[in-house]
Amino acid sequence: MIQLTRRYRFSATHRLHSDRLGDEANQNLYGKCNNPFGHGHNYEVEVTVRGPVDTQTGRVVDPAELDTLVERHVRGALEHRNLNEEIEEFQQLVPTTENLGVIIDRRLRAVWDEAFPGGKPTLARIRIYETARNIFEI
Amino acid sequence: MIQLTRRYRFSATHRLHSDRLGDEANQNLYGKCNNPFGHGHNYEVEVTVRGPVDTQTGRVVDPAELDTLVERHVRGALEHRNLNEEIEEFQQLVPTTENLGVIIDRRLRAVWDEAFPGGKPTLARIRIYETARNIFEI
Amino acid sequence: MIQLTRRYRFSATHRLHSDRLGDEANQNLYGKCNNPFGHGHNYEVEVTVRGPVDTQTGRVVDPAELDTLVERHVRGALEHRNLNEEIEEFQQLVPTTENLGVIIDRRLRAVWDEAFPGGKPTLARIRIYETARNIFEI
Amino acid sequence: MIQLTRRYRFSATHRLHSDRLGDEANQNLYGKCNNPFGHGHNYEVEVTVRGPVDTQTGRVVDPAELDTLVERHVRGALEHRNLNEEIEEFQQLVPTTENLGVIIDRRLRAVWDEAFPGGKPTLARIRIYETARNIFEI
Amino acid sequence: MIQLTRRYRFSATHRLHSDRLGDEANQNLYGKCNNPFGHGHNYEVEVTVRGPVDTQTGRVVDPAELDTLVERHVRGALEHRNLNEEIEEFQQLVPTTENLGVIIDRRLRAVWDEAFPGGKPTLARIRIYETARNIFEI
Amino acid sequence: MIQLTRRYRFSATHRLHSDRLGDEANQNLYGKCNNPFGHGHNYEVEVTVRGPVDTQTGRVVDPAELDTLVERHVRGALEHRNLNEEIEEFQQLVPTTENLGVIIDRRLRAVWDEAFPGGKPTLARIRIYETARNIFEI
Repeated sequence: MIQLTRRYRFSATHRLHSDRLGDEANQNLYGKCNNPFGHGHNYEVEVTVRGPVDTQTGRVVDPAELDTLVERHVRGALEHRNLNEEIEEFQQLVPTTENLGVIIDRRLRAVWDEAFPGGKPTLARIRIYETARNIFEI
Repeated sequence: MIQLTRRYRFSATHRLHSDRLGDEANQNLYGKCNNPFGHGHNYEVEVTVRGPVDTQTGRVVDPAELDTLVERHVRGALEHRNLNEEIEEFQQLVPTTENLGVIIDRRLRAVWDEAFPGGKPTLARIRIYETARNIFEI
Repeated sequence: MIQLTRRYRFSATHRLHSDRLGDEANQNLYGKCNNPFGHGHNYEVEVTVRGPVDTQTGRVVDPAELDTLVERHVRGALEHRNLNEEIEEFQQLVPTTENLGVIIDRRLRAVWDEAFPGGKPTLARIRIYETARNIFEI
Repeated sequence: MIQLTRRYRFSATHRLHSDRLGDEANQNLYGKCNNPFGHGHNYEVEVTVRGPVDTQTGRVVDPAELDTLVERHVRGALEHRNLNEEIEEFQQLVPTTENLGVIIDRRLRAVWDEAFPGGKPTLARIRIYETARNIFEI
Repeated sequence: MIQLTRRYRFSATHRLHSDRLGDEANQNLYGKCNNPFGHGHNYEVEVTVRGPVDTQTGRVVDPAELDTLVERHVRGALEHRNLNEEIEEFQQLVPTTENLGVIIDRRLRAVWDEAFPGGKPTLARIRIYETARNIFEI
Repeated sequence: MIQLTRRYRFSATHRLHSDRLGDEANQNLYGKCNNPFGHGHNYEVEVTVRGPVDTQTGRVVDPAELDTLVERHVRGALEHRNLNEEIEEFQQLVPTTENLGVIIDRRLRAVWDEAFPGGKPTLARIRIYETARNIFEI
């Protein structure tokens, strides 16, 4: 069994603000990340798949197929977006990078079986670098 | 003569849009960077100073003094901000990273002589990394 | 369950020398790392925590709380120090980076339950980069 | 128990082509990686070992011993080589980076017990970076 | 005046061998880089342009135009190629990275005036990273 | 004319302290860098040479010759050393990284003409990274 990790990049904006809390509580909780005008990041996403090496092709997955899936459901959908305003899931959820990881994982799992029938490879891990010093893993 | 470069980071949002142009022209010109909801980056700024090595201290500048100046006028002022909405100079200018470099350079030069009387060190160069693959230098 | 990793930096000096061994044995064992005058590194420490995403805040931990804990017990305590001369644990232990990892892990575990009552998040992993090519994990 | 990871580099050439498939099938499968004249990479290999910290030396392994082993069987043997033409295992296998990982793992395991008698440390993981965005793990 | 640098990547193979010299002289001169089967790299190319900031667009160049030019004449033309066998200029020249820099510079200058009429921006510099530790600049 | 830059690494210890100043003045001037027990860094040194591309070899310099020179006079001489205690020039000079750059430049210039007779290539620039965010250039 082998793991392959591919890294993808996108730039986006978010504002940390919980509708369940008042303005002062939000400010205390999120500090400068609560700035009403938002702020942004160059996010890096790692998608890790796991499976056997195909004896004929020598590969664990066709990288072009994985890239197409990630581009359609994750990278291309988030690139140059405002997460609070333009991404459906964040109408209900605070767009912390924890939750961003959760929805990326959820989006890929929702289409995984159709894209990779037979359960090879599996989706092993999502990792997001909000900055080089702040890293999240599902 | 020696050059010292110190790197600083901040995260911010911008939207590329010129008030002098119509919506379609803006869209053609800036593409996805014209997204009305904005997008963001982890900016890296390099400030380079140039001067002789002081024979007593062995230094070209006191790094704490330089950090204080950059924090007050550049890094701390831009950290977690929306450049279009919250930064005065961008009420008149499109917040491209070219112009961001210009205003950082201008802000530091405006206070340089008072901070470093006697003309040592000089401000030699401003460099901004919008991403690791898109780099601007004044 | 989500993991959050935050990276911290400090610069310090160490000398690899075991009091239980003679000079020649030390020289054979540690080579240039046994230099009696010491040598130093820019260490990078990754602290990884693990827990559920809080439904209200969207976070696995308050990053400011984690930073405060790490600053007090690890980063600030080691920054610009000579590990052999100034760090209590290394009066008994050779300050290899293996042992540095062990004491960082021990220091954080000693205060973890008080800092994060209820067992959320847990301390999942300590990783130290002595250089970019020599990496230790507890 | 501690893990130590050491990183090694080498540059090599490969061509992805399966002798079991026709030219058109190879072209469809591997695309530009099937170029008959080959192409190359700066590979980075991480070798991770796992074991207890020796109480006398404070180390999990003598890094010089590990380097010697990796140099002889992996890094030095692959440096500036054409994987298809010059590496024995790839007379039978397509030199994908998946398979490169498999043979590196196999080569080290074949000599591990003799190099590290007593089973300390164990070989915990091989990771290969084909590029910074395409990473394989055994 | 502002400089913009954009980074591009490609992977390729080369063999250092001069037809003007005998086999032994080539071996002495180029060492392992003379391996008859070739070896390869992940090359990184920086293209730096220099010009005034356009007052209307806030830009020194349209990045999409620059990318198109570099893709057609440099990156796309070299990606996954064997420099010795497939690149016309290297039928006459040894494909050292010095000469690779020279031909990239020459290719871009040959089409520059047509792509950027009016002389804005100018082509200021080509830099190539053969590895992270071996860097060439024209 | 082409520039070639090669990067080298070494780890060392230093303490910033000027014998011409009292203890309190040293403390005020250098802060934590004045710690009497020292602290250390993973230094990275870039040596840049400049010259014409030799038409026969396609090279600006034989990299092995440059490496030998740098190893003997710079990298190997500083590796795992305490700059204050073990490096002759720092018996007179405060071992700031500014002064480290000055002595590296001086050491290489002292042997350059003998190593590269005919003035090709020239020594164009020394750059030292004390950390990734604090960079010096001669």
